[in-house]
Amino acid sequence: MNGPTRSLVHYGFVEQGRRFVLSSPTVMPQASTFLWNRRMLLQLNCRGYATAQFMQPEPAKYAHAPNLEARTFMQPEQPYYAHHPGRFCYVKDEDSGLLFSVPHAPVNRTPDRYAFTIGAGEVAWTASCNGIEVEMSVALPVDDVVELWTVRVRNRSGRPRRISLYPYFPVGYMSWMNQSGSYRADLGGIVCASVTPYQKVADWFRQRDFMDRTVLLHERAPDAWEANQATFEGEGGLHAPSAIVGAEQLAGGDALYETPTAALQYRMRLVPDAQEEYRFLFGPARDDAQITELRRRHLSARGFADAAAAHAQYLEGGRGCLHISTPDPWLDDFTNHWLPRQVYYHGDSNRLSTDPQTRNYLQDHMGMAYLRPSTARAAFLHALSQQEPNGAMPDGILLAEGAELKYINQVPHTDHCVWLPVCLRAFLDETGDDALLDEMVADRQGNAASVAERLDRAMQWLLDQRDARGLSYIAQGDWCDPMNMVGWKGKGVSGWLSLASAHALNLWADICERHGRHAQAASFRDGAAAFNAAVNAQLWDGDWYGRGITDEGVVFGVKADTEGRIYLNPQSWAMLAGAADQPRRQRLLAAVDAHLVSPAGVAMLDPPYTGMREDVGRLTQKFPGSAENGAVYNHAAAFWMHALYTAGESDRAFRTLRAMLTGPRLDECVQRGQLPVFVPNYYRGAWRLHPRTAGRSSQLFNTGTAAWMYRCLVEELFGLRGQGQGLRIAPQLPSHWPRAHVLRRFRGAEFEVQIERVDGVTRPRVAVDGHWLDGDVFSDIAPGRRYEVRVELPHAPRAADGAGPAA
Amino acid sequence: MNGPTRSLVHYGFVEQGRRFVLSSPTVMPQASTFLWNRRMLLQLNCRGYATAQFMQPEPAKYAHAPNLEARTFMQPEQPYYAHHPGRFCYVKDEDSGLLFSVPHAPVNRTPDRYAFTIGAGEVAWTASCNGIEVEMSVALPVDDVVELWTVRVRNRSGRPRRISLYPYFPVGYMSWMNQSGSYRADLGGIVCASVTPYQKVADWFRQRDFMDRTVLLHERAPDAWEANQATFEGEGGLHAPSAIVGAEQLAGGDALYETPTAALQYRMRLVPDAQEEYRFLFGPARDDAQITELRRRHLSARGFADAAAAHAQYLEGGRGCLHISTPDPWLDDFTNHWLPRQVYYHGDSNRLSTDPQTRNYLQDHMGMAYLRPSTARAAFLHALSQQEPNGAMPDGILLAEGAELKYINQVPHTDHCVWLPVCLRAFLDETGDDALLDEMVADRQGNAASVAERLDRAMQWLLDQRDARGLSYIAQGDWCDPMNMVGWKGKGVSGWLSLASAHALNLWADICERHGRHAQAASFRDGAAAFNAAVNAQLWDGDWYGRGITDEGVVFGVKADTEGRIYLNPQSWAMLAGAADQPRRQRLLAAVDAHLVSPAGVAMLDPPYTGMREDVGRLTQKFPGSAENGAVYNHAAAFWMHALYTAGESDRAFRTLRAMLTGPRLDECVQRGQLPVFVPNYYRGAWRLHPRTAGRSSQLFNTGTAAWMYRCLVEELFGLRGQGQGLRIAPQLPSHWPRAHVLRRFRGAEFEVQIERVDGVTRPRVAVDGHWLDGDVFSDIAPGRRYEVRVELPHAPRAADGAGPAA
Repeated sequence: MNGPTRSLVHYGFVEQGRRFVLSSPTVMPQASTFLWNRRMLLQLNCRGYATAQFMQPEPAKYAHAPNLEARTFMQPEQPYYAHHPGRFCYVKDEDSGLLFSVPHAPVNRTPDRYAFTIGAGEVAWTASCNGIEVEMSVALPVDDVVELWTVRVRNRSGRPRRISLYPYFPVGYMSWMNQSGSYRADLGGIVCASVTPYQKVADWFRQRDFMDRTVLLHERAPDAWEANQATFEGEGGLHAPSAIVGAEQLAGGDALYETPTAALQYRMRLVPDAQEEYRFLFGPARDDAQITELRRRHLSARGFADAAAAHAQYLEGGRGCLHISTPDPWLDDFTNHWLPRQVYYHGDSNRLSTDPQTRNYLQDHMGMAYLRPSTARAAFLHALSQQEPNGAMPDGILLAEGAELKYINQVPHTDHCVWLPVCLRAFLDETGDDALLDEMVADRQGNAASVAERLDRAMQWLLDQRDARGLSYIAQGDWCDPMNMVGWKGKGVSGWLSLASAHALNLWADICERHGRHAQAASFRDGAAAFNAAVNAQLWDGDWYGRGITDEGVVFGVKADTEGRIYLNPQSWAMLAGAADQPRRQRLLAAVDAHLVSPAGVAMLDPPYTGMREDVGRLTQKFPGSAENGAVYNHAAAFWMHALYTAGESDRAFRTLRAMLTGPRLDECVQRGQLPVFVPNYYRGAWRLHPRTAGRSSQLFNTGTAAWMYRCLVEELFGLRGQGQGLRIAPQLPSHWPRAHVLRRFRGAEFEVQIERVDGVTRPRVAVDGHWLDGDVFSDIAPGRRYEVRVELPHAPRAADGAGPAA
Repeated sequence: MNGPTRSLVHYGFVEQGRRFVLSSPTVMPQASTFLWNRRMLLQLNCRGYATAQFMQPEPAKYAHAPNLEARTFMQPEQPYYAHHPGRFCYVKDEDSGLLFSVPHAPVNRTPDRYAFTIGAGEVAWTASCNGIEVEMSVALPVDDVVELWTVRVRNRSGRPRRISLYPYFPVGYMSWMNQSGSYRADLGGIVCASVTPYQKVADWFRQRDFMDRTVLLHERAPDAWEANQATFEGEGGLHAPSAIVGAEQLAGGDALYETPTAALQYRMRLVPDAQEEYRFLFGPARDDAQITELRRRHLSARGFADAAAAHAQYLEGGRGCLHISTPDPWLDDFTNHWLPRQVYYHGDSNRLSTDPQTRNYLQDHMGMAYLRPSTARAAFLHALSQQEPNGAMPDGILLAEGAELKYINQVPHTDHCVWLPVCLRAFLDETGDDALLDEMVADRQGNAASVAERLDRAMQWLLDQRDARGLSYIAQGDWCDPMNMVGWKGKGVSGWLSLASAHALNLWADICERHGRHAQAASFRDGAAAFNAAVNAQLWDGDWYGRGITDEGVVFGVKADTEGRIYLNPQSWAMLAGAADQPRRQRLLAAVDAHLVSPAGVAMLDPPYTGMREDVGRLTQKFPGSAENGAVYNHAAAFWMHALYTAGESDRAFRTLRAMLTGPRLDECVQRGQLPVFVPNYYRGAWRLHPRTAGRSSQLFNTGTAAWMYRCLVEELFGLRGQGQGLRIAPQLPSHWPRAHVLRRFRGAEFEVQIERVDGVTRPRVAVDGHWLDGDVFSDIAPGRRYEVRVELPHAPRAADGAGPAA
């Protein structure tokens, strides 16, 4: 690990086990992480910018932009600007006048030392200028919407210092209807109030109990404060606020239908090596009583420690089922700490939405099956309770009373049924809980049917939604949201969805078979075969599968196109569905290698569109050289990885996996701006067209990728997948790995798995507690037991297409 | 004028006839003005911030905030912050490194000299630092959506200088779907492109021809440029951009799904007194061809001059019918130049809305009757074409195909019919165009009826919408939008609306009478009397009229209330409607003086609400200490003024009028932050509760106040109102004015009116062309003629309640 670590330092960051430390605020200024609890999400940037959201019941904010922001879904590559919400401390040397800010913005003074330290449940920044070191850290309790901040100031200069510390938590433009802010000595902090804007009477009753206050509470009383943003800034602006630069003390102003702020001042004299510590609570509240209660519950050393312990325990509930030690320490850290954390976030927060897209909801809970199966089980049942009488699944799953389908969920998509067997299969393999299939689920019309019956209906719906050619209608989109004009007139079809339907039908047929429902199994298998045959007849383009056929009958995603010639998804799912025979498989593998594999990973399509193509739709305009349009869209790459592992293409699969994760190629990390603490939903593509931005991370951690990565790591790379009542042990290590060690938690037991390539071994073989298995399935699992597993693999021939961690 | 002018200089601004000059960027940092043409509106702030909107067909922007802004109606007191859109020039001394920006932001360096010069059709800023003077000015063409900017740099330092000038026109966060920016040598400027976000197929067809580009075109080629906002700012931020401070030349970057910007650099060597001049074009465009055409049409000295001439001609079309010379030079300037300009803006732009509220639309065109009657006439007919079959008027008037009722227009209000006779009366008086009454108007159902019949139906609708007590239902609001919970259950009634209905019925009865429709006149007069009787029976509270009765039967706006005890509107309209007899009139006058007259003008209610009162509604939460809640809401004050003039209370009326206009009380101007170039919709109230902010201007120039002020000036203060085929001449000068001179344009003739208080005169008397009239109506008007009018008034007794320009 010495090599990579030295390079990391060179590039501005270092890695330390379960925490990740970035040692420069400028080398990747977009770098960010996130904390969450049961009610809120806090995105944190290395320079101090922050975005906090909580549910009441729709996502709401308590620290706002300087203007009235649009309410929209979570965006990728959110821009930061001087007045973006954040959490900062200004520090002024009262003798020299030197001013800096921690973490880095708004003053942006180059620090002497700097660290952005990311833990699972706590994030900290340390910045040091001219011998004064300030550490800011934040953690969340489990059930309250509140940020718990600790600020420590240390004099490392070796001489006495007079310092003013100004915690500055901007509150922004709260509401056009009403806003104010003032210091409240009785509550111990700055309280900003507003009324969420509304015009219709009905909205008042929806909003009357909103937590429309934003509070910054202190444990130690400050020397001065300021609650008026304009007064705070004055002519100096955020980089040199007049209230700080031009005065000894903050003036104690208030905001009255003006933009409020929360700024405090602590004046201190520090002897050499002295340290002062402060605690603050920042968050929304409804009224004085709630503010008082929040203070009582949290705002003390004991309260912070209790919250940290409780939050750590909460996170432990999502620790995952896998702990690995491999030749790739970056992958180890990511797999052991960061990836299950991200999967857990998805499954426990449902992406802070009250109407998650059905496909996302199901896949997120597919991931949750490996962490907390009971939650996944409940989610599957909840989703099925919203199935339409005709078997269709709605575009989104409503989670809260009064929730409505919003944004993209108002646009009809046709793929949602596919995810039922895909995700159910993972759940059943992981849990063996086949009883789920007989669980009765009542829908909104009050009609009850078993899970199995509901799956039957969903599969039948997929079969019904075919055109005369036997291909699936796409309506205004399938998995790919913005491909909204292929079939909006009701004729266009999706090649990918036809293949995904075939795969889903096969998966469900397998489960039916196992459940003794042979007739259904046979029927669904026939349906799958028909889909595959139709796709092979209509969409095989010689070297790869086309993406679809438009309303006007134009096949696209084929060689005849100059843009969008080849799409990744049909190739992945043709392999999964069994549509591609061996010769076709070889051709499409070569085509993907030639057209889609890029330095940043496997692109979703190529060449990227450069202009609107009306018969494809919004896709062709979205994010030029980025996201869906030519990006390395990790969710699609994850499907490809899954297909490759399923096909035994373990080296290609590993390269695809590894490209989703930054490090150890550090120039790439910096180019991506991505810390290896989550997998983003995309890295920008269009590497030939836009090399400057190619590879850049979206910084958006909401993505089905996380669940699929975790599934592939567990089931494919380390090959530890449930099968009926047993555990199948069949690792697919990349050819350049001589060994790996894995701890796998499975159905209450623990498997300590040592995988090694051994001289003379020609076929993989598996021993459990010293006994060689006949085959690769170990069935005799006793909960609470710990098993020692040894897997011996043959040496890999040096792969013809090269081997290595990244493409 | 010497006195006030000297004081103005002392307070940071000076006045120069038709232009207004503010000589400090800091004394009133919110101070703003606006330009508009047939398709766009440009709000301009003294520090360089700007908000531009154009119609396509809904209001759209081409320079954006740094984040995704909410689409909403035009807000008062918009906050400015560092990244607010604006138009700036940075100036760097290449030898000393000194950096400043013009107009003032983002660097905010204190200028040696500064001027913000507001003209009717051109706005300019001049700032000078260390001998370098930069002037920026902007004008608009009449029909294109484009800003025409001139920048002049002058070396006033007496020594040779090496300077870089950086025009910086931030473009902001354009779209989450697609955004880019780059320099286009072929087009001669920076072109930023985006796709307005959409998710539904139908929206694509609505948006495909949007002008989704933002261009900054130059006449003279720059030495360098930058199109990437982040690169431009670097670590230095807006106050000291790294691209300027850290480098000799801008680096020529582009933006690719990044926030674009438009920054140019001109390097120049200036000998003493040298001047360089640059022209730029900034605005939206659809495509290259349109950009090329905009350049060809405008981007030259000749093009700018042509545009200025055409725009001046356009403005001349709204010059108004009044030119005055009085003892109050501020009022003269305002009346002669600024007020008609504001009235014209309303009538010609319809507030940049496709669905103006019906009451606003009618009142705005009431104002237009004095400027361009043909437009007002068309507007009345258009409004009536949207009347419901039952006589009701809709909440908003749709102006564009596909337009929809939005925001507050989705909340049912019950007052819209009132404004038909109120505004029609002014139109008929001004034009004598009684033929309008017989004009046939087809509604959306295709049914035709004359204007008179439609008015009958509207009046009948008002009569129908009464409860058992004979009072008008308020539903979810009347003129006062946010009083939305008084009657939402269908029972609550409005005292104001009952009185306004009575006034409307009386006005319409007068017109019917004149039109020979005696039976209708009698019937409507009976209706008015019934309204008045009901209000006197139910709502007279001993010293003033109550505001209404809630769904639960609670009378409010009465002495029993501790907040919202007295409302202004019922008092005004009780006087107009004739509900208040002489004793009641004296009591309510005294009550208004005692409770509502404040240093900033006449408040709409008092005491302001400090918390939610559910049976009144949103009013009680909106803008604490401001706007509807306790503010000097000028539109309501204007009704009061109108009622006072109608009652012959000319001194009280004048004080009310004068308080709407800033100057010459300069401390008040600064407190208000309001330049005397438009009347804002409110000055903040709650002067006892919130003295720090009381009087502050909303900076919002959309207000029915302008039309009412103009009407009162023409018809009441200077007493030059049409009556049948004649002109009634009956000025009501304030008692402290000895004389006034007026030019009045009326029905194609011009009246040169000299008004004077004369010793020995006991009753007003009027001479036209030397002949004394019998009475005050001159009927023999010949278009094209110019009449010399002399009005002799008696000396006024020193009014008991004092006299003077402001309360």
